[in-house]
Amino acid sequence: MALIVQKYGGTSVGSIDRIKNVARRVAHFHKQGHQLVVVVSAMSGETNRLLALAKELSANPSPRELDVVAATGEQVTIGLLAIALHELGIGARSYTGGQVRVLTDNAHTKARILTIDETPMRRDLARGTVVIVAGFQGVDAEGNITTLGRGGSDTSGVALAAALKADECQIYTDVDGVYTTDPRIVPEARRLSSVTFEEMLEMASLGSKVLQIRSVEFAGKYKVKLRVLSSLDEPESTAPGTLITFEEDDTMEQAIISGIAFNRDEAKISVMGVPDKPGIAAAILGPVADANVDVDMIVQNIGSSEHTDFSFTVHRNEYQRALDLLAEQRKKGLAAREIIGDSRICKVSVIGIGMRSHVGIASKMFKTLADEGINIQMISTSEIKISVVIDEKYLELAVRVLHRAFELDKESA
Amino acid sequence: MALIVQKYGGTSVGSIDRIKNVARRVAHFHKQGHQLVVVVSAMSGETNRLLALAKELSANPSPRELDVVAATGEQVTIGLLAIALHELGIGARSYTGGQVRVLTDNAHTKARILTIDETPMRRDLARGTVVIVAGFQGVDAEGNITTLGRGGSDTSGVALAAALKADECQIYTDVDGVYTTDPRIVPEARRLSSVTFEEMLEMASLGSKVLQIRSVEFAGKYKVKLRVLSSLDEPESTAPGTLITFEEDDTMEQAIISGIAFNRDEAKISVMGVPDKPGIAAAILGPVADANVDVDMIVQNIGSSEHTDFSFTVHRNEYQRALDLLAEQRKKGLAAREIIGDSRICKVSVIGIGMRSHVGIASKMFKTLADEGINIQMISTSEIKISVVIDEKYLELAVRVLHRAFELDKESA
Repeated sequence: MALIVQKYGGTSVGSIDRIKNVARRVAHFHKQGHQLVVVVSAMSGETNRLLALAKELSANPSPRELDVVAATGEQVTIGLLAIALHELGIGARSYTGGQVRVLTDNAHTKARILTIDETPMRRDLARGTVVIVAGFQGVDAEGNITTLGRGGSDTSGVALAAALKADECQIYTDVDGVYTTDPRIVPEARRLSSVTFEEMLEMASLGSKVLQIRSVEFAGKYKVKLRVLSSLDEPESTAPGTLITFEEDDTMEQAIISGIAFNRDEAKISVMGVPDKPGIAAAILGPVADANVDVDMIVQNIGSSEHTDFSFTVHRNEYQRALDLLAEQRKKGLAAREIIGDSRICKVSVIGIGMRSHVGIASKMFKTLADEGINIQMISTSEIKISVVIDEKYLELAVRVLHRAFELDKESA
Repeated sequence: MALIVQKYGGTSVGSIDRIKNVARRVAHFHKQGHQLVVVVSAMSGETNRLLALAKELSANPSPRELDVVAATGEQVTIGLLAIALHELGIGARSYTGGQVRVLTDNAHTKARILTIDETPMRRDLARGTVVIVAGFQGVDAEGNITTLGRGGSDTSGVALAAALKADECQIYTDVDGVYTTDPRIVPEARRLSSVTFEEMLEMASLGSKVLQIRSVEFAGKYKVKLRVLSSLDEPESTAPGTLITFEEDDTMEQAIISGIAFNRDEAKISVMGVPDKPGIAAAILGPVADANVDVDMIVQNIGSSEHTDFSFTVHRNEYQRALDLLAEQRKKGLAAREIIGDSRICKVSVIGIGMRSHVGIASKMFKTLADEGINIQMISTSEIKISVVIDEKYLELAVRVLHRAFELDKESA
């Protein structure tokens, strides 16, 4: 008998029929004798509907009141799921974030969880009652309703699992695990039975949006065993999903490369011929950061002895704004021969914790792309990933050939 | 400067535009220097939508979980109204029932308010902040969400006014006050500037559903000054509505008759020729009451020396059930010559606290009806009302002629 926290997202509870499906799945685990805490999101579309009402009233609504409105989405789902479980003869009680004292800071719309009161949940679990908790929400020290921001229900699930020292936190989504890459691009893409925390972080931030990145960090911090599974399969025949591990010396076989991630939404800006002297990076990126434009890759190329070229990528939506900011800087005295940009690029990354101890991954990646005539515009590396910026038209081709080159379609030996 | 509690029902907050209207009205009072507590219902249709979701899952959903789901309706409105007030530059904070500790018993879906914690509201009011409270909801001693039942937002408003010792509780509705009768039937019907608590109770229970009856009782108990006004007029030109008073020796002029109420939805059942002996009324009505069929008028006519006729009215929806129950009782030994019923009747009542000290009201009523050839089937009287049951086809005629006979179209001298 295990204590399992299950989290179901908006799509999984998006209709009455789907809520019934979730209830059947919960009942399936309950009948096996497990103690269950179920965290749910708002029915899909509901949070957007609620926020749209607020936006109709104000372009800049009060974050405190936005949270009051938005938190109702999850509250509806917990009550409905409890009723659905009762229909199956299973004892269940719903709790809002406030009712289990998911205490957060007071950063409305993006609050962080501080503590959770496990007492009422323990009491219910001891009686065999399924505990249902509204994800995404909490209360601050003064009793104000807070929300954790988009995707916050994943974080709620992980935080509850940490507080209750659950044996496993199962995140149900519309995919049945983490894949070596996007199966829509590479049909041979394979589901990973496990992936390390660090790899998962890279996958998430690179666009494999299976889990919300903050929840994965949270799981890592509290060593919560996290599993991604599909809520679309029948309860009795659900694939085991992907386990996210936090220990490198795990007994399981570790592949060198675990996946190919990619991101279409990037744009590249190069500031050419700037003086090669201390402080130049700060002079270029400072105003961009001050304007809250997120910068992803940063590469400084070696230029002539006195001048250098400086490149970085931003989200495509912020491309024009970043260009404008730099033009302004130039007027204000930033010495640069030329500022050029390209919004038709993409980023492709090879990710694997195993590459730390394996040489030759980078050269294999570069050669594979070169063999297809794909020009690499920027390169950036970390201990467990290598990212390249290429022309966006080559995205699918690059992902396919890299997937094959690193034999990701085959089970690791 | 007064402390005013204002309550807005579902229609008044039924759309974003209407919420903006409510905000403008609140702002109008705020600018006059009043302290304001605003109680709101769910946007119209929302409570029904939420309950329908629960009913899709279960024919008999858990009352605790129904309350969790239903309470979200008002929670959305409080947040939206706060945002709308901010847009007008007015400080405002929303509170759920739980956040101001509207403590109730644990009778889910029909809970009764026990106490309210006025501390957070006093703090806000002292700062000039408008306090917005979700109507219809509270929490029990264990922190479970409760609701007060349909129309409970009126009760919330009155209870808050009582707890805060407010100068006035204003109930905004889609009518601009209490009328001498339904203006759709009698165009000359006149708005009463004041009506006594007792008269209002009779009006409400007789179908003039301006206020929820429980809230009026509550107001009477705590001597809350209650005013019914229209939320449809412009804030600056709102009619003064109708004040509900609780003291007979009020300085204001008291009319003898204040209104004509009526109810179409009744049905009549007569049990003829039952033994005229103690216990017979209980024998007839006991099983009906046990089956939760509400009985309205009860009249026992004098029959022969040994037998009597017993009549009562029920809601038309429960007519057949009541007949079936009596048929069953008859099989079990209830001695009765005949059981007859009529579902095509209506009830018309003349109401007025002044009739206590005026003779001749009843005879005037009966004569007025007789002059029109309207036969009276049942009569029932109390200190402040006289009700008659007549054929439903005469309803409009009866109301019109009585309105004229008692000169309700004229301001009281």
